[in-house]
Amino acid sequence: MSMNQRIIEQIEFIKEIDKLKNILRMTLVGDSSRRENDAEHSWHLAMMALILHEYSEKSIDLNRVIKMLLVHDLIEIYAGDTFAYDPKALVDKEKREKEAADKLFSQLPADQEKEFYELWTEFEKMETNDSLFANAMDRLQPFISNVMTNGHTWEFGNVTKVQILTRMAPIKDATPKLWPYILDTVSSLEKEGLIKN
Amino acid sequence: MSMNQRIIEQIEFIKEIDKLKNILRMTLVGDSSRRENDAEHSWHLAMMALILHEYSEKSIDLNRVIKMLLVHDLIEIYAGDTFAYDPKALVDKEKREKEAADKLFSQLPADQEKEFYELWTEFEKMETNDSLFANAMDRLQPFISNVMTNGHTWEFGNVTKVQILTRMAPIKDATPKLWPYILDTVSSLEKEGLIKN
Repeated sequence: MSMNQRIIEQIEFIKEIDKLKNILRMTLVGDSSRRENDAEHSWHLAMMALILHEYSEKSIDLNRVIKMLLVHDLIEIYAGDTFAYDPKALVDKEKREKEAADKLFSQLPADQEKEFYELWTEFEKMETNDSLFANAMDRLQPFISNVMTNGHTWEFGNVTKVQILTRMAPIKDATPKLWPYILDTVSSLEKEGLIKN
Repeated sequence: MSMNQRIIEQIEFIKEIDKLKNILRMTLVGDSSRRENDAEHSWHLAMMALILHEYSEKSIDLNRVIKMLLVHDLIEIYAGDTFAYDPKALVDKEKREKEAADKLFSQLPADQEKEFYELWTEFEKMETNDSLFANAMDRLQPFISNVMTNGHTWEFGNVTKVQILTRMAPIKDATPKLWPYILDTVSSLEKEGLIKN
């Protein structure tokens, strides 16, 4: 027995994406001991989709959502994480990420390259029900992290209440039943002085 | 609008499982810079299932497998990680993990408590096609990590070739097409002196 080229490519890809564990985000883990990385962030998002999918206002395919969330940040292995509240970094984000996607996904066999590329593109475009729900989870997770870490990235980025609510808007649209959690929490944190007006 | 008890429980559970990011395994991340944690390990396993599911010898439901892998290590938040090659730690593993599962999953609404408990139990029992494939991924991932980190845990645990092949046996059974990768790699690493006879 010897291995075929397809298996070799797949194993090499599995090794390459190990690097996602070293792509650091601005958010901290819940005990504030260190910055969170993209791999554990992606796991947390997939768990949140599994727990909260009943609140999607529109019909979704949970299984596709989970795959999308597992894959959505892979391109940051080459493109790096872009802080959501940094307008300068957002300027060339699309170009950087497109190049990273081409470089990364082309390391897979062609059928899987297509599958991953489509999941990532769908997530980014935010047009389908699945991607709108997935993006709502991607906004909610760092919100919860901030709640657990005294508003760490909000303070770091000098972020205001209006900016936070604007950033969280996809939650209102995709999962309106979760919106009261955002409003109640923002209101409490504002009283505690952890969110600026 | 105000939040109902169900949503509050779900959000609190999402906060609680953040702790999985601080449960360290014996394996290192690919660049050997630090120990891997359970959250990123779980993400990596789910990705591997997504990439390698075609090699399952028996019919599986990939979506259930992915959910099982996302959930399978959660109980280590309270039970801790058990090093696979430590026979002493294995003695009370089942009891510790059962208690941890009771404590953790009961924090969810009853329907989701049942869902998560069943996924975890199924993974542990290794009786169904889905759980046998999921367990094969859970054996293959640290194997690949060891390949990337010069056999770190094998050296740490003074592990022999026979012990490795015994530990990897679920891969042979569930995904025989991947078995040549294990055999070829073990053979190469043995020649390099990274695996003891």
